[in-house]
Amino acid sequence: MSGWLVIAGLGPGDPSLVTPEVSQALAEATDVVGYIPYVKRIQPRHGLTLHATDNRRELNRARHALEMAEGGHRVVVVSSGDPGVFAMASAVFEAVEVGPRHWRNLDIRVLPGITAMLAASARVGAILGHDFCAINLSDNLKPWDLIERRLRLAIEADFAVALYNPRSKARPKGFSQALKLLRQTCEPDRVLVFARSVSTPDEHLRTVLLSNASPNMANMQTVVLIGSSATRILTRDTSPIVYTPRSVGQ
Amino acid sequence: MSGWLVIAGLGPGDPSLVTPEVSQALAEATDVVGYIPYVKRIQPRHGLTLHATDNRRELNRARHALEMAEGGHRVVVVSSGDPGVFAMASAVFEAVEVGPRHWRNLDIRVLPGITAMLAASARVGAILGHDFCAINLSDNLKPWDLIERRLRLAIEADFAVALYNPRSKARPKGFSQALKLLRQTCEPDRVLVFARSVSTPDEHLRTVLLSNASPNMANMQTVVLIGSSATRILTRDTSPIVYTPRSVGQ
Repeated sequence: MSGWLVIAGLGPGDPSLVTPEVSQALAEATDVVGYIPYVKRIQPRHGLTLHATDNRRELNRARHALEMAEGGHRVVVVSSGDPGVFAMASAVFEAVEVGPRHWRNLDIRVLPGITAMLAASARVGAILGHDFCAINLSDNLKPWDLIERRLRLAIEADFAVALYNPRSKARPKGFSQALKLLRQTCEPDRVLVFARSVSTPDEHLRTVLLSNASPNMANMQTVVLIGSSATRILTRDTSPIVYTPRSVGQ
Repeated sequence: MSGWLVIAGLGPGDPSLVTPEVSQALAEATDVVGYIPYVKRIQPRHGLTLHATDNRRELNRARHALEMAEGGHRVVVVSSGDPGVFAMASAVFEAVEVGPRHWRNLDIRVLPGITAMLAASARVGAILGHDFCAINLSDNLKPWDLIERRLRLAIEADFAVALYNPRSKARPKGFSQALKLLRQTCEPDRVLVFARSVSTPDEHLRTVLLSNASPNMANMQTVVLIGSSATRILTRDTSPIVYTPRSVGQ
């Protein structure tokens, strides 16, 4: 019995953003488990079984992975981006906590990856270059009131903010409400970046002022970055540089 | 003239956490610029000049890199972790903003890396597995009052929190004050992780409750992770798993 479970981050999309550590784990794996579009990114090979499952099945997926590791398989649970940022790592540990006690002593490792907000921030410059926070805008697993409260306090603290999962077909309204809250609490020239599918062929980046932002600029593949009050736009011949300085006036 | 400037993240220390994209840029570079311990991580080779400079010289370093790129060199500015998280990307863009206008049209790219908080969170489980924020505890470039205010609002929002640069010889008091603030605002069994030099031979991880935390647990190589009120510790035969669940009671 030498099974193990690795929860690995595949980064935002481009293979050149997958760490060698993750590639090595995938090369040693007998089973890969994950949401369909992430499993599609894994090259099939002899001796490797791919288990692709639908979204919102995270706990079942986690249990399945744990059972296989317990049975001696070498299992990689794949997430996009970083597995610890609104992804599978917490789901696996939730399953461990309520599962049989001996699951805690399985060989479980989390391998970090490049998360969407940092890939997006790099693409435009360094909009998260000072204190910042990350908020999951999905209210599938938490009340909307809490999301609004966190966003309000984040703006009050003058953090730069990354909004994950801003909008989906099942949740068309949340991001509109978030934009409304931003309009109540920020100056109209606050900088927003809509970053879609960063590092993939579908990559689309758009830098706008809050006064020009609209809900349909975001979809489920978008991370929305909100600058702090100090965030700067440097215009140039190509797309602008967006960055947040390190200094705050003393 | 085919000079370019890449601002690259080397990750927390282990070579297996450097992305292939960054390795490729380093393989093509004529010059590497950075803080001494980060430049030491670059393998010397024929045709590559290493420019190692002391800390707190970020703007000079940025200008030097920009001048070399302007002169046709292929320059990589190296940061530990991710260059957009309390590192060189913002410093370079600050230099671009106040420099000659044509610097804006240089070929400048930021290549993301695995930042310390995500490497540390992965090592212990998924303590940043829900909404979280990152605060630089150094008051070299911002007033201490603002740091306290942000930390207070972050706790009020019930974010998990990563504190970068918690303590140095030149700043022995800040982290003590931060701990005092946490004791005033959080329950005594709030979970803290002190993660030092993650993924290096000097790695040291310590999970403690707030009531048992002391300032000397942190130094300049430490990132301090503070759980949200929902963060859980799962004890097991080896070091505990620390994670924040995805759900908040509705």
